[in-house]
Amino acid sequence: MTTEQLINQIHKKKSFLCVGLDVDLDKIPTHLLAEEDPIFAFNKAIIDATHDYCVAYKPNTAFYEAYGVKGWIALEKTIKYLNTNYPEIFTIADAKRGDIGNTSSMYAKAFFDDLGFDSVTIAPYMGKDSVEPFLSFKNKHAILLALTSNQGAFDFQTKAIEGKELYKYVLETSKTYINSENLMYVVGATKATFLQEIRQIIPESFLLVPGVGAQGGSLSEVCKYGMNDVVGLLVNSSRGIIYASKEGNFAKAAMESAKELQLQMAKELALKF
Amino acid sequence: MTTEQLINQIHKKKSFLCVGLDVDLDKIPTHLLAEEDPIFAFNKAIIDATHDYCVAYKPNTAFYEAYGVKGWIALEKTIKYLNTNYPEIFTIADAKRGDIGNTSSMYAKAFFDDLGFDSVTIAPYMGKDSVEPFLSFKNKHAILLALTSNQGAFDFQTKAIEGKELYKYVLETSKTYINSENLMYVVGATKATFLQEIRQIIPESFLLVPGVGAQGGSLSEVCKYGMNDVVGLLVNSSRGIIYASKEGNFAKAAMESAKELQLQMAKELALKF
Repeated sequence: MTTEQLINQIHKKKSFLCVGLDVDLDKIPTHLLAEEDPIFAFNKAIIDATHDYCVAYKPNTAFYEAYGVKGWIALEKTIKYLNTNYPEIFTIADAKRGDIGNTSSMYAKAFFDDLGFDSVTIAPYMGKDSVEPFLSFKNKHAILLALTSNQGAFDFQTKAIEGKELYKYVLETSKTYINSENLMYVVGATKATFLQEIRQIIPESFLLVPGVGAQGGSLSEVCKYGMNDVVGLLVNSSRGIIYASKEGNFAKAAMESAKELQLQMAKELALKF
Repeated sequence: MTTEQLINQIHKKKSFLCVGLDVDLDKIPTHLLAEEDPIFAFNKAIIDATHDYCVAYKPNTAFYEAYGVKGWIALEKTIKYLNTNYPEIFTIADAKRGDIGNTSSMYAKAFFDDLGFDSVTIAPYMGKDSVEPFLSFKNKHAILLALTSNQGAFDFQTKAIEGKELYKYVLETSKTYINSENLMYVVGATKATFLQEIRQIIPESFLLVPGVGAQGGSLSEVCKYGMNDVVGLLVNSSRGIIYASKEGNFAKAAMESAKELQLQMAKELALKF
């Protein structure tokens, strides 16, 4: 998917919501456990109920790998279901991969060619040749970890290299990578004011923002400091939407949670566009 | 597996060789492509031929994910085959994972509990709560990326934070993590002299050393600067062993390559023990 198609969807749906499909069999409605593929059954119900209110879905691969081959099958079915039924949706494999060049190429092949995701999240520690293989695919995107929303972000990401924090150094260095126009960035919402400085380094790029809601970030703060002329934001919510209810009405409850966020996003968009 | 069991194996086999099982269907003997599961058939033949000369096997998950569900099945069969037939072998999932706490817990469950690996490689960028979930398993090990063997290592890893290179800062910080005795580290052999300084920070830990051979590192240099009182080294070779031949004799050729490295390792061990 091109960035322009994503931007068009955002304006059409008045939403920049990404729904995180982090399926934990201990947390889904118990009646689904009788299904042949409970993970896919859950995802399908959530997607069907929420797709009008979001522009992206983001399965985190850890939650699928934890169920072995069955989990991987459920991941394949989920991305195929999305690409077949809702081709306008932007898809993110939240995989946080990254390895030496020829190995990163194998991951890129796995997520872009075979599974058919539009984007994949990437860890920057191994540098240029671990990231660039993900940037050489037309209309595909690598979403590089910059500043994450967890406590451990302060271990290394906020420490200074040559007078600037590592995450800013990562942002600046990544701009020199070949095909860097295919980069987006993960920036945690728990430090929304940091977005102002981040926008000075990468004014044009899309940011994937986790940590709104459950992790305490404020949507209006994120928009105030992070929104740019092409919106430039995908705000993720996982647990707050997909586990809004554990009862028979779980899909409707997820829809209502997604709609609530979408309405807030529509207001934020109306302030600027 | 306990570290003591690993050390005993090293002395028994006079080897600290790790064989990387990075299976690319374009590079294996063509007659294997007729097998029901060519990846597993290849791995089984390589393992049966080389296990006397190595103490560890390291499948890189990228090469399995690239083949989707079939690849994941081959990975499961490979680790089960190793655990059933060669339980004395140390197994490494070269996955370079790392995510926020609850998500890293899912990855740890996937690789340690479900697949049954002894260890998994971890990327440090997200810090403490992304690493510690891998350290809470008894007799399991997290192998943290410190200094990798690729060119991109110089993008961030060798840049100075508070007067010391990021990879040294990662080493020092990781020593404060809960259950840090379950940590090992990836240190690329292309910078063998760096091992001297690394050993000042982590004198006791095991190091997984890629980059000997194909990537230019010297075994004797690695041993000179990196070997400690418990050996403390696992030296990996992937392509140089598993693709020693693409003909019908591929397993024997792999065995001979592994044996050649083992003989060099036996000499290095004899110098110290």
